[in-house]
Amino acid sequence: MRIEKDGLGELSIPEDVYYGIQSFRASKNFPISGTQVHPELIKTFLLLKRACAVANEKAQVLDNEKSTAIQDAVDKLLGEDYLKHFIVDAYQAGAGTSQNMNANEVIANKANVLLGGGLGTYDHIHPNDHVNMSQSTNDTYPTAMRLATLNLSKQLVLELQRLSHAFKDKAQEFDLVIKSGRTHLQDAVPIRLGQEFGAYETTIDHLIEILIYSQDYLRELGLGGSAVGTGINVPHGFRDYALIELQEYFEDEDLHMAENMCSAMQSQLPMMVFSNALRVIALELTRICNDLRLLSSGPANGLGEINLPSTQPGSSIMPGKVNPSILEMANQVFYKVLGNDQAMAYAIQAGQLELNVMMPVMAQLALESTHILTNTLKTLRELCINDIEANVEVCAKYAAQTSQIVTALNPVIGYAKAAELTKESLRTKKTVIELVREQGLLSEDQIKDLLDPKKLTVPH
Amino acid sequence: MRIEKDGLGELSIPEDVYYGIQSFRASKNFPISGTQVHPELIKTFLLLKRACAVANEKAQVLDNEKSTAIQDAVDKLLGEDYLKHFIVDAYQAGAGTSQNMNANEVIANKANVLLGGGLGTYDHIHPNDHVNMSQSTNDTYPTAMRLATLNLSKQLVLELQRLSHAFKDKAQEFDLVIKSGRTHLQDAVPIRLGQEFGAYETTIDHLIEILIYSQDYLRELGLGGSAVGTGINVPHGFRDYALIELQEYFEDEDLHMAENMCSAMQSQLPMMVFSNALRVIALELTRICNDLRLLSSGPANGLGEINLPSTQPGSSIMPGKVNPSILEMANQVFYKVLGNDQAMAYAIQAGQLELNVMMPVMAQLALESTHILTNTLKTLRELCINDIEANVEVCAKYAAQTSQIVTALNPVIGYAKAAELTKESLRTKKTVIELVREQGLLSEDQIKDLLDPKKLTVPH
Amino acid sequence: MRIEKDGLGELSIPEDVYYGIQSFRASKNFPISGTQVHPELIKTFLLLKRACAVANEKAQVLDNEKSTAIQDAVDKLLGEDYLKHFIVDAYQAGAGTSQNMNANEVIANKANVLLGGGLGTYDHIHPNDHVNMSQSTNDTYPTAMRLATLNLSKQLVLELQRLSHAFKDKAQEFDLVIKSGRTHLQDAVPIRLGQEFGAYETTIDHLIEILIYSQDYLRELGLGGSAVGTGINVPHGFRDYALIELQEYFEDEDLHMAENMCSAMQSQLPMMVFSNALRVIALELTRICNDLRLLSSGPANGLGEINLPSTQPGSSIMPGKVNPSILEMANQVFYKVLGNDQAMAYAIQAGQLELNVMMPVMAQLALESTHILTNTLKTLRELCINDIEANVEVCAKYAAQTSQIVTALNPVIGYAKAAELTKESLRTKKTVIELVREQGLLSEDQIKDLLDPKKLTVPH
Amino acid sequence: MRIEKDGLGELSIPEDVYYGIQSFRASKNFPISGTQVHPELIKTFLLLKRACAVANEKAQVLDNEKSTAIQDAVDKLLGEDYLKHFIVDAYQAGAGTSQNMNANEVIANKANVLLGGGLGTYDHIHPNDHVNMSQSTNDTYPTAMRLATLNLSKQLVLELQRLSHAFKDKAQEFDLVIKSGRTHLQDAVPIRLGQEFGAYETTIDHLIEILIYSQDYLRELGLGGSAVGTGINVPHGFRDYALIELQEYFEDEDLHMAENMCSAMQSQLPMMVFSNALRVIALELTRICNDLRLLSSGPANGLGEINLPSTQPGSSIMPGKVNPSILEMANQVFYKVLGNDQAMAYAIQAGQLELNVMMPVMAQLALESTHILTNTLKTLRELCINDIEANVEVCAKYAAQTSQIVTALNPVIGYAKAAELTKESLRTKKTVIELVREQGLLSEDQIKDLLDPKKLTVPH
Repeated sequence: MRIEKDGLGELSIPEDVYYGIQSFRASKNFPISGTQVHPELIKTFLLLKRACAVANEKAQVLDNEKSTAIQDAVDKLLGEDYLKHFIVDAYQAGAGTSQNMNANEVIANKANVLLGGGLGTYDHIHPNDHVNMSQSTNDTYPTAMRLATLNLSKQLVLELQRLSHAFKDKAQEFDLVIKSGRTHLQDAVPIRLGQEFGAYETTIDHLIEILIYSQDYLRELGLGGSAVGTGINVPHGFRDYALIELQEYFEDEDLHMAENMCSAMQSQLPMMVFSNALRVIALELTRICNDLRLLSSGPANGLGEINLPSTQPGSSIMPGKVNPSILEMANQVFYKVLGNDQAMAYAIQAGQLELNVMMPVMAQLALESTHILTNTLKTLRELCINDIEANVEVCAKYAAQTSQIVTALNPVIGYAKAAELTKESLRTKKTVIELVREQGLLSEDQIKDLLDPKKLTVPH
Repeated sequence: MRIEKDGLGELSIPEDVYYGIQSFRASKNFPISGTQVHPELIKTFLLLKRACAVANEKAQVLDNEKSTAIQDAVDKLLGEDYLKHFIVDAYQAGAGTSQNMNANEVIANKANVLLGGGLGTYDHIHPNDHVNMSQSTNDTYPTAMRLATLNLSKQLVLELQRLSHAFKDKAQEFDLVIKSGRTHLQDAVPIRLGQEFGAYETTIDHLIEILIYSQDYLRELGLGGSAVGTGINVPHGFRDYALIELQEYFEDEDLHMAENMCSAMQSQLPMMVFSNALRVIALELTRICNDLRLLSSGPANGLGEINLPSTQPGSSIMPGKVNPSILEMANQVFYKVLGNDQAMAYAIQAGQLELNVMMPVMAQLALESTHILTNTLKTLRELCINDIEANVEVCAKYAAQTSQIVTALNPVIGYAKAAELTKESLRTKKTVIELVREQGLLSEDQIKDLLDPKKLTVPH
Repeated sequence: MRIEKDGLGELSIPEDVYYGIQSFRASKNFPISGTQVHPELIKTFLLLKRACAVANEKAQVLDNEKSTAIQDAVDKLLGEDYLKHFIVDAYQAGAGTSQNMNANEVIANKANVLLGGGLGTYDHIHPNDHVNMSQSTNDTYPTAMRLATLNLSKQLVLELQRLSHAFKDKAQEFDLVIKSGRTHLQDAVPIRLGQEFGAYETTIDHLIEILIYSQDYLRELGLGGSAVGTGINVPHGFRDYALIELQEYFEDEDLHMAENMCSAMQSQLPMMVFSNALRVIALELTRICNDLRLLSSGPANGLGEINLPSTQPGSSIMPGKVNPSILEMANQVFYKVLGNDQAMAYAIQAGQLELNVMMPVMAQLALESTHILTNTLKTLRELCINDIEANVEVCAKYAAQTSQIVTALNPVIGYAKAAELTKESLRTKKTVIELVREQGLLSEDQIKDLLDPKKLTVPH
Repeated sequence: MRIEKDGLGELSIPEDVYYGIQSFRASKNFPISGTQVHPELIKTFLLLKRACAVANEKAQVLDNEKSTAIQDAVDKLLGEDYLKHFIVDAYQAGAGTSQNMNANEVIANKANVLLGGGLGTYDHIHPNDHVNMSQSTNDTYPTAMRLATLNLSKQLVLELQRLSHAFKDKAQEFDLVIKSGRTHLQDAVPIRLGQEFGAYETTIDHLIEILIYSQDYLRELGLGGSAVGTGINVPHGFRDYALIELQEYFEDEDLHMAENMCSAMQSQLPMMVFSNALRVIALELTRICNDLRLLSSGPANGLGEINLPSTQPGSSIMPGKVNPSILEMANQVFYKVLGNDQAMAYAIQAGQLELNVMMPVMAQLALESTHILTNTLKTLRELCINDIEANVEVCAKYAAQTSQIVTALNPVIGYAKAAELTKESLRTKKTVIELVREQGLLSEDQIKDLLDPKKLTVPH
């Protein structure tokens, strides 16, 4: 064991660890979930500290040796199993001071070792005075949180695009599959299965736009506000120098500094805008997956319009049963995402004066949701959507027997007369076309022209 | 116009109104929704003021003449169109001071007029000194809110009981209707339609228990806590005397006084417990109504196991279309109730120190939800559930063709072999029973014994 | 009474009313809330029907006489008390068929009367065949819902802009008021009151952007999809002609037709995007109003940094008490808006196949929230924000006594030594500056340069 | 690698593993979160399978040798590191078939090995035919989910009780600390700090009642319903025999079988009732922790009525700053719990017909929330509540200077006159008592009697 000291006094901590006394205190103070801070956030913190070391040197408040040591320490760490040094629970003190200090301490120790010093001595590089120089938890945490979320969300954009494409392919494949539309779950006028899948594609394209829009909010960084947004202890030029680094590390030219640093600290609005995007994704995909489960219901006693690929036996008792497993998994993930979004909303409104301290839970919520959503969309596409097949005969049967084909006669015979035909069709079990023929309402040419299900699905 | 004066100065208010300066100020300060405070709360406030006048007299802090005048004023008001005197918007200042003062002022003016005085003079009866005697907004508002909610909720209990009964009747009516069960929306082993409706009945019976349990929390009253729960200015005996009156007015012997008045003021937990009950009602009935919409899907291209009564034409364009209108209306009401419950949750956690000031919105949420839910359940029962009919042939067809009847063979031939039969049935379109016969797996007696759908639905 | 007939049979309805049998049925079927459909939606439906009549004439499916009669009927109605003809409850059948038919019937009757016919005869103009021509509830309802929401939301944008301006004015007014920052509600480094108000302004400016972005989604209209999005019975050109009218009526050149009409019918995503915008507004303004309530706490025993204008006596028992009434009202409205948003989320995910039938509740939620939010922001600005005053002395006292001024010494004496000074300051009740002098840590010039609270609040 | 076969065909799986083909398929199908099914659920599944083996033997459908082998396998597993055999992600196929089969396969392999067989042979004990005998995922999963949740929740009850006791101790300790009450965050009449803490205790006692009430719902088990609630393939006596075992394993005599097995499968209401209990706990404790953060605000520029124990340095930049870290951590956990509760609500309403397939996410939500809430309450008590100290002088100062002491004069001088005194006090900065003396409103004896803050806090 070695002794370290902080503002609260001395404490023994394990001999060989790279974290320091404050990380150790936090690990004891927050034995809550056993879940580590999300790896994406940990990595982002390291990169952010590197950027700040560069910026501090350029702003001439940190000498080259110290700056280089910090940069080297980060580079070394990123090449190793650095996650093991991060010991603070995902649920921790407000604002994430413990997470920030964990990064500061690990980097300081690494740098000191690189410079020939010992663990826990901090004689060359001090966690607060050098690694955290010109920074506060209050500006680094929201900056890291936004960058980590932004970065992880780029995978989600890709998966949404792939999913959209998968639906587009199916829309083309099913373009000629005529079926009965259903509104209110009741038989309606004909539609093509491809039109339904095309509508899903369009909806997903909208979701992509919304997600991309939300990313812009994450690109606005309050770094340099330091303790309360006024930039105390932050040297001239620091923000610009740091920005250049961050743009390079995260390969994102559109990263920019917030004009109002107080607002960027008080308000975590960007996280809510992003969560709102995840929310609409979850809500709309819930609807679409529910539709697919309904269309594949059966095999004998349901709608049975589409077949899903079998991925695993569906029942421990009912032999040979196959369920829409992937869709059901997806639905459950969407509910979890909606729950995380709700937690985000509570956190967002809980800011007080200069700071919203509820950031650690915000980061965890956004990163967890992004992560499971991304994996879910990939699985959904690969193991389900890509291999959906149409039951063309079933669809055709429905198209033929929907009494609502009568709608096409409104312009000819009027709504009231058409309604009578519908009732007669349901009562007599004759199709509308049979009745039209019996009653001589239309010639065969007119029937072909007006009541051809295929024609009825093409907008003018 | 007449001039009145309060702590903020003088103001002209309309000549002939029974409300006073503070109500008038509030009506100008809160031009928000145009929605009046819920009538049930207004009425409850009048009754509560009456009970306090009686209690103040018995506790010997208010003379008989004044007490009687206040009681008479309330009695007169309740016999007239008293709602017109209540002019404050449902969204108003925290804690509901305006609503309390509106009651105090209206009663004071009525009492003064009864005693021969003029409007706005308050020479005999003063809104604060006499009508509000021994009270604060902070103890009367939560008391009135709980009483009003409790009272309105009794209708909801009745409607839930009637709905349960309606499902029970249907469970009996459909007891012999064999159909295919569905899990994951996929064909499963047989079940009787009556069992499904019986399960709905059981669920609703659970909901009734939960709602009744929540009512107990509403019966705990913090009256007598006055400003901060310490009972300042409340005479000895007041609480007991007031309770006797309230038990009589609301015909509820189980009303009781909170042991800890500070807690009863700080924490509006009873409103959340009640809202939680409304929430589970909404969630479970959403599920049940969704089921009924699914079972009635068709008429030709859906499950079509049940027929709902037609209540109105379903489409402006598709002639003769009939939709599950009542169920859809109900679903929308349930969503609104779930939304109100969410707003309640935000309000509940927003208390600060001695008081949760978010009470006016709490009252509005609980009363609105209770009101629309009660009406919805009545309509749902009368215009939908009572007249549901079973499509016996359709159900029988499904029971016959579900391949999952094979489940019954597990104990005889094992799960793996049974799974093969299922696949064969789906592939060959032969029923499982046909295959069993073909393959000589069972004798005819065994088939009758093991694979009779009716028997398969009776638990041992 | 007069007799009308529809697909369900004959019914007596009141003699002199402009609505018809389907409206009447619906009014009996849905005795739920007693709340009318929102007036903005009713008006929008009338205008939409007018646009369709014009488009039908131009597309040569409706003759000039009929088209003109419908247009005249709408114009006449809009000049009268037309709301009284709309008798269907806000909670009604899915998709809003009843609301659409109510509009169709009222316009048809008005047109027939204008053409010399009688009520309920429909000999010239038929509700379905002429007023509803080329339309379905399924495309008109979402179109009208989006237009009505868009239109009402324009007032909300204006009020947000005015609120932002009010905060900007205060930011300027309070620019020189130095105070102590607070993070975690604990004393922090100095900040200016004007910086806090400026941050609120910036946040509101972000909210405005988000709201305006969401409006774009509302501008995408699925009119012309008719029953299931395939445009059955919709003549060539109809969509373009209708769009021109709508752009003119709503003075909005950016209105446009959805490319995928099936998606525009299936998915009510635009309503969720809009609701998401209301949600972030509510969440962020909750935070800001909470801050203002905290800053104005007191008068003697709270933070007391700002004074709010008095709007009404705050207590029925505590004389002379003045509360942050407007802010508390606003907080309650925000919670209601958050609740409505939750209900919207449930509705959005509940679409099935070609249609999301939960539209009537969506419309009601969006319009109610927009309405009360707009009124709240106006009241908040006029009766509260505009007249906030700073307690300059109190702020100055806090700035002087915050031990965190020591932060400025970090670069000189290091974090660890500075932490010791802080502890000593708290223990000895001496200010940090006194201790610095005592210990000779800095010269007077340095003290002036490094520890001047004003300088400490200016970013480099 | 070894080859196994199921209804979908053959597959190579690792040679030495105890799980089988279906677990393996599931692990490939659901690469979602990397989070294992909650250990409490895994353990409960093992115990449940043991109980079923006993019951099957007693019901004479499973011979003694096989039953004993299954029981022994479970007992062995429970003595080892059994969690490693459970490889399916927490997000998996609906209903939890994969989790059930994972248990069935692991137990079967273990039993076969015990009986001298090999892995993956299933010649003695078959996962479906023997381990899963008389069961379905559809009745075992909800049974296990309820049992696991119930069991874990017992720790939460204990922690709530301990927390209540901690507040009770503080209520006694602070019983004589007079302070100013605050309503609307504005100065109000006096109260004792002990009364505030006593109110927290009372609230927590209510929360305990609500949680215990919710546990009763978890005790109702639908085991024996098998596939759709009709009990197909379940022998007579099975349910009773299994219940006896479960009561013993879980040391809970109140476990009982659901009367309506269809309802117990369709409706997962008990999980929502439990989640509702967690929700009110989170909401009320959010409020209480917010209060404690407010009361401890300062040290110089806040309310400063209480001191929290220091647990760690609060800032990376502001030296010596100490924050309410534990309270902030707790608040974040509460928000997460509220989010999980929201996800639960979506899952609960999503049941369809015979089954609610959203159970795996329900289990995960309930168990995660219970787990982190239990740990949080323990930490909150041990590291925060137990060591809170009162700032007696600060409290006394507030009590002396609240102008609202004037409330006590209402009965003597009337509300209107008292209001004038308040305004004068605020204007002149004289205390109300000074003004009363100056104006000769009361004798010294009356002042002592009427305006003694201590007396003013004692209810009559």
